[in-house]
Amino acid sequence: MLPNPIKNFVEVFSKLPSIGPRQATRLAFYITSLGKNKVKEIASAVSNLADLTACSRCFRTHTGNEKLCSICSDPTRNQKLIAVVEKETDLLSLEKTKKFNGWYLVIGELHKNGELEPEQKLRLSALKNFIKKELPPSHKASEGKGVGKAEEIILATNPTVYGDLNAATLKKELGEFTDKITRLGRGIPTGGEIEFADEETLGSAIDKRS
Amino acid sequence: MLPNPIKNFVEVFSKLPSIGPRQATRLAFYITSLGKNKVKEIASAVSNLADLTACSRCFRTHTGNEKLCSICSDPTRNQKLIAVVEKETDLLSLEKTKKFNGWYLVIGELHKNGELEPEQKLRLSALKNFIKKELPPSHKASEGKGVGKAEEIILATNPTVYGDLNAATLKKELGEFTDKITRLGRGIPTGGEIEFADEETLGSAIDKRS
Repeated sequence: MLPNPIKNFVEVFSKLPSIGPRQATRLAFYITSLGKNKVKEIASAVSNLADLTACSRCFRTHTGNEKLCSICSDPTRNQKLIAVVEKETDLLSLEKTKKFNGWYLVIGELHKNGELEPEQKLRLSALKNFIKKELPPSHKASEGKGVGKAEEIILATNPTVYGDLNAATLKKELGEFTDKITRLGRGIPTGGEIEFADEETLGSAIDKRS
Repeated sequence: MLPNPIKNFVEVFSKLPSIGPRQATRLAFYITSLGKNKVKEIASAVSNLADLTACSRCFRTHTGNEKLCSICSDPTRNQKLIAVVEKETDLLSLEKTKKFNGWYLVIGELHKNGELEPEQKLRLSALKNFIKKELPPSHKASEGKGVGKAEEIILATNPTVYGDLNAATLKKELGEFTDKITRLGRGIPTGGEIEFADEETLGSAIDKRS
């Protein structure tokens, strides 16, 4: 019953997070009704996303031709301080507080069962390699010499049951690569999401990390 | 802070109905994270919508090269019976019932203030012209000869305050072009419970009992 281009649009868009088949169908008809020029404009808004590349260190998307993004290539940022975030929108929210001078690892949305996807394992390996090879060894006398170590890794997962579970998984993975491992302070209301926290709350959450 | 392609995507997509800037931002990053091939696939799902054309009679979208859609060109359908719907998705819902053998006018989503957009006025004019020129005159003796008239026009707007308002507007426009003007029956939805039906609905269910 539905014309093929509509059917195809619905199929593709209803796979995207938080878009169901009903909303996709409405969108398809709505976009069509805007006329050919608008359709092309919207299509290129999508296809232009292909110009983005992932930073080879933190995996956030950026437009430059450089391998590293503006944060990772910024010499004033503390390389020994790393925040692991799930989503880029989480990173952006943290950046807005201007309270964090380290860099990030964007690990991607974590599964509710606490398991890591292959891509997420690769990103963790990249982080571990960077720490071992590029950072100075721990200042603690008890530590083995030669192998680099982070000063602090903040596990900036959401303060939810699943976020706790995932933080535990990440702690197991990263514990030996850092002197200190922390989470954001519970200034954020439990059950809330980083992305939706206001700057003030998020700022104190950085201060109160523990 | 946001890379330009993301910013542009958010700007374009948050103008679409039921997508806010937050959801658009998440979508942008999500689509980007799928990789260049997927990005291209999603972009062409959008750009293929430009292949659709509007039926010159009912204004629903279709893919064929013909001017008329499959419903309007179907000789078994009753041309004297017309349902005015706001959205194509409404048309599809009505078609699924297999209870309607007339044809449609897709007028587009109506404003809450009951005013018609220029495009909507054009579509109504097209309908009026079709009725006057292509349909036989009314069988009623009192009517003027020569000018065509529909047997029935169903104003299939939603059974809401705004739907009622819009139906009143459409009735003023179309009343003289048809012998009978109706709206969809109101009552308790199948599977619904009397206990939870509002008074208005239950009132019409009593009126329309059968």
